[in-house]
Amino acid sequence: MHTFPEHLLQGHANFMAGRYMREKDRIRDLASEGQNPSTMIIACCDSRAAPEMIFDSGPGELFVLRNVANLVPTYQPDGGQHGTSAGIEFAVKALAIENIVVMGHGRCGGIKAALAPNQAPLDAGDFIGKWMAMLGELPGQLGKNGLMTQAERQTALERISIRNSLRNLRTFPYIAELEKAGKLLLHGAWFDISTGELWIMDAKSGDFQRPNI
Amino acid sequence: MHTFPEHLLQGHANFMAGRYMREKDRIRDLASEGQNPSTMIIACCDSRAAPEMIFDSGPGELFVLRNVANLVPTYQPDGGQHGTSAGIEFAVKALAIENIVVMGHGRCGGIKAALAPNQAPLDAGDFIGKWMAMLGELPGQLGKNGLMTQAERQTALERISIRNSLRNLRTFPYIAELEKAGKLLLHGAWFDISTGELWIMDAKSGDFQRPNI
Amino acid sequence: MHTFPEHLLQGHANFMAGRYMREKDRIRDLASEGQNPSTMIIACCDSRAAPEMIFDSGPGELFVLRNVANLVPTYQPDGGQHGTSAGIEFAVKALAIENIVVMGHGRCGGIKAALAPNQAPLDAGDFIGKWMAMLGELPGQLGKNGLMTQAERQTALERISIRNSLRNLRTFPYIAELEKAGKLLLHGAWFDISTGELWIMDAKSGDFQRPNI
Amino acid sequence: MHTFPEHLLQGHANFMAGRYMREKDRIRDLASEGQNPSTMIIACCDSRAAPEMIFDSGPGELFVLRNVANLVPTYQPDGGQHGTSAGIEFAVKALAIENIVVMGHGRCGGIKAALAPNQAPLDAGDFIGKWMAMLGELPGQLGKNGLMTQAERQTALERISIRNSLRNLRTFPYIAELEKAGKLLLHGAWFDISTGELWIMDAKSGDFQRPNI
Repeated sequence: MHTFPEHLLQGHANFMAGRYMREKDRIRDLASEGQNPSTMIIACCDSRAAPEMIFDSGPGELFVLRNVANLVPTYQPDGGQHGTSAGIEFAVKALAIENIVVMGHGRCGGIKAALAPNQAPLDAGDFIGKWMAMLGELPGQLGKNGLMTQAERQTALERISIRNSLRNLRTFPYIAELEKAGKLLLHGAWFDISTGELWIMDAKSGDFQRPNI
Repeated sequence: MHTFPEHLLQGHANFMAGRYMREKDRIRDLASEGQNPSTMIIACCDSRAAPEMIFDSGPGELFVLRNVANLVPTYQPDGGQHGTSAGIEFAVKALAIENIVVMGHGRCGGIKAALAPNQAPLDAGDFIGKWMAMLGELPGQLGKNGLMTQAERQTALERISIRNSLRNLRTFPYIAELEKAGKLLLHGAWFDISTGELWIMDAKSGDFQRPNI
Repeated sequence: MHTFPEHLLQGHANFMAGRYMREKDRIRDLASEGQNPSTMIIACCDSRAAPEMIFDSGPGELFVLRNVANLVPTYQPDGGQHGTSAGIEFAVKALAIENIVVMGHGRCGGIKAALAPNQAPLDAGDFIGKWMAMLGELPGQLGKNGLMTQAERQTALERISIRNSLRNLRTFPYIAELEKAGKLLLHGAWFDISTGELWIMDAKSGDFQRPNI
Repeated sequence: MHTFPEHLLQGHANFMAGRYMREKDRIRDLASEGQNPSTMIIACCDSRAAPEMIFDSGPGELFVLRNVANLVPTYQPDGGQHGTSAGIEFAVKALAIENIVVMGHGRCGGIKAALAPNQAPLDAGDFIGKWMAMLGELPGQLGKNGLMTQAERQTALERISIRNSLRNLRTFPYIAELEKAGKLLLHGAWFDISTGELWIMDAKSGDFQRPNI
């Protein structure tokens, strides 16, 4: 007897009857030959922002790390257990990934907590606050409260945080080196969970823009 | 000009023309009313093991944390930046999630590294080794080398690690409490990236079994 | 008067009215011309793992030796009465068999006894313990108790034992020779008595895998 | 890649689509609750004499040991590896079987070898000759050559050997005891591989007769 959620079992049966049946040979090849994705996505845990859905991607395409608010810490080889850094190291060193995309999204709960750190139910927690503190002074530098609306402040910090994560990625020596050698590209993206739109960061200006497609 | 990967842009255009068009109303509601998933999945970054694919799930259904080898640390409220613990805290405290699934998978690169820690290209890294060291003595207790095949040792450790993560989840005081009160269920699952099969952990014995569906 | 089990008599009547009637000519030919099976199966006595059922095979197809836990001893031409070796010798020398399959199965009582040798009701026996001792050091090398579940330890040993039997088969000089000459193939297989699935051993790695059919 | 015999893979696919689909629930119950057969059959490896075929039996019904010529040795608790005795011990002690059937059959290759021990290809072997020597003086006591035909001598020895095995079974102390207590019945049977007929041994006279059904 198990208590495994019925909706997951039904979903898996759909997968088996659908995608798996259609792509069986490719999936089996991926298993025996190993994964070889060209892109890593660092995304948020949010249930509305799954990279595979947003990019309509199939098995083997995206190496995906998901944490709260898609944050990347600076390079800290201090012997601590850095899960995000471990994922980045695996992607770059073991998989020789060519692109890393830091993808934020609208109405992000982690960013919201960073803007209102003393609000229930997370104020008493041990981890979220500390995790979002990775943004350091950034939330406090956002300008006087009441100037931008709450929604504007949030969108602003979501994008500021993506640029911050990209800066932090470049503190990893091998990432800086590979990027300089033209072997690794770093990208920022922001997904609007309401309109479905994808906004891409301009590498030079740091602005987020709708792609011309 | 941008260098954003073309395959991602094309994939996103597919999403907009497909799923987004079909589910527009639901996606917009999810954005304005907030996410309310009942299930958190802790999964691996592996490109072949996306929870949304495996469970054929749509936007709003799964709160997904992905790190290397789907590890959960013990509860360590030491002020450090614990990304996985932050995700768990967010799921339980902010979203009042009802199920947490720790989902491992076959041929996991992180588990492989834990079994052969001195192998290139990860031997010289700063993070993977330390991250997988979360498994502590477990890899070394696996029995004599050459008895089980490499693949069997790996599957064994993948499952041992899932049980270990579930044990670690229960060191979070609020998780132990909610589970005891019947308000939160913890599950283990293992995905065969080759056959597409899902194996579910029996809560009592810890064995992984094919669901009877 | 006889006390012969009624269910066997009824079963035999079914055989006569069914298969025998349908395949009478072939069965009579097999009797007069002699058996000429191309495959020997070394299987367990377990009532749930009959090779003829598992392979849906008819009369004349499989030369089947069944002992507890489908064990094969090493070549020991010491003048002792080695029943399994006699069966192998008959298959290879008298029947010129082309395939030998060592087929284990899940939840094997003999393997269970090897893992827990001091448990009733077999602890006081004269033969099972000694028979399973053919596995030598293997059960003790399986790694720390409590790491893998009981069921996982058992499956691991079931498969380790199959590989051990295949190694032992190769200690028979004529088997090694015929295999080298490409005239005899050795195979490992493992039957899941619950799901009905057959797992086939990869000759190179020793791994057990679902066949791609 | 594997070289597993195609006819076995096809046969197994037939099993899965046929019997397994029809009896899935019962087979799964047998797996989880354990086997509980009431009858052990000691039979020959011959490909034309599978007990499950002869008795049209399903999974869980028969605990089947098969060796060359369905021989049972005497009780020899000498620490040697007696495979047949291990099977008997398991059936009686672990499964509390109620019936043991020693089933011989016509045109048995092992019995033929016992009657012509110096004939190729088995004369030079290490095991068959020694195994059939379990019959001791019996073949030599069969009467002068040329008196009975070869076929008559063979059928005679096949039946003599069954009675000998039943005598040997009774040298196992617990078998003698259980039989005396009416808790275990011993039976002899002989299967005609040509006509499909089953001949049952009369417990008193030792004669083989067609059952009245």
